Amino acid sequence: MSGIFISFEGPDGAGKTTALNSLLPLLKEETSKEVVVSREPGGSPISEKIRKIILSIHDQDMDDRTEALLYAAARRQHLVDVILPALNEDKVMISDRFVDSSIAYQGGGRQIGTKEVAEINDFAINGTIPDLTIYFDVTPEVGIARIRKDHEGAMDRLEQEKIDFHKRVHETYQKLIKENSDRIIRVDAEQKPEKVVSDALDIILKRFPKTFNGGK
Amino acid sequence: MSGIFISFEGPDGAGKTTALNSLLPLLKEETSKEVVVSREPGGSPISEKIRKIILSIHDQDMDDRTEALLYAAARRQHLVDVILPALNEDKVMISDRFVDSSIAYQGGGRQIGTKEVAEINDFAINGTIPDLTIYFDVTPEVGIARIRKDHEGAMDRLEQEKIDFHKRVHETYQKLIKENSDRIIRVDAEQKPEKVVSDALDIILKRFPKTFNGGK
Repeated sequence: MSGIFISFEGPDGAGKTTALNSLLPLLKEETSKEVVVSREPGGSPISEKIRKIILSIHDQDMDDRTEALLYAAARRQHLVDVILPALNEDKVMISDRFVDSSIAYQGGGRQIGTKEVAEINDFAINGTIPDLTIYFDVTPEVGIARIRKDHEGAMDRLEQEKIDFHKRVHETYQKLIKENSDRIIRVDAEQKPEKVVSDALDIILKRFPKTFNGGK
Repeated sequence: MSGIFISFEGPDGAGKTTALNSLLPLLKEETSKEVVVSREPGGSPISEKIRKIILSIHDQDMDDRTEALLYAAARRQHLVDVILPALNEDKVMISDRFVDSSIAYQGGGRQIGTKEVAEINDFAINGTIPDLTIYFDVTPEVGIARIRKDHEGAMDRLEQEKIDFHKRVHETYQKLIKENSDRIIRVDAEQKPEKVVSDALDIILKRFPKTFNGGK
């Protein structure tokens, strides 16, 4: 596989999706390769069906381990249908969330255990790890305040969880950064949006100098 | 948990579901405990939704690992919603298929690997293993011939698979029996239906003499 695989990670309210939208045209200017963005489980009909089950507000009695297995299943199919074909076609593939999200949210947030959740995800990804992960860092307090402003009255199942949950998610992400310091690079997402985008852009351009013009 | 957990296993066409239907009234006569039968993912609305995705004939492009994760997810929810409550209420719980099916079908049949599939199922069941498993044994040839007679023109995704697949399933079951000789007891399911039922009944009565009258 000759493409480049980048994942964007961060707690709810970190603004990573907004940053990604601003970043995309800038990245495209710097490379001759096709740049593709996907959010799990986007672009994969089977994964979309699985996601529907996960996020349905009516399934409040879903067990935490069931949820973790469903996320792993949706991830697997998204990988097979979207990510691997893009990498095989020499594209730059950016995924809005990947395995680290499950470890942080299900392993840490829901307290299933990071090792256990990492194991079922190892089964799902079977060796495909991002070349680079950008972590958009905000404190749980700032992240939650931003979500409340954005979606008042329309939070989904995960967003409804309590502040303690978000603190555990944040802590788990910090642990993942320490354990994967080569792969995961932190961006301070409490800065102004323009600065968040330019920091993320810098990181990507410098990491892949053969793909992006970068130092122009 | 004070109940008894029994699983029924076997390749397609072994006749275990038919045997279970005949066995149920006979078992009920022998015990004061409530005897409950469930087929994964029966009785669990979330699991039924997951099963719909798995068995849909339109999802032919489902990846094998996605399928295995979905089976594990459906199993988890069925365990939480149906099996564990029954065991907590001191019932005799009989499940038509459980973990061994996934190891045989996905691990062996689809060649994902028995160890890998066992691991994601360990995550799903989190320590709940049947007290007894009855394995209804038929050769792949006999099993497939029976399926063809029963369902001509209406086979589901799994049943459509080739004879090699069924041979690998059968081999994997034989390995599981060897490795779990205390838990898994074989019944020759090529015998007459009445003999299959009486053999299975004998095994259950003798295994749990405090629960079933048995030797009457």
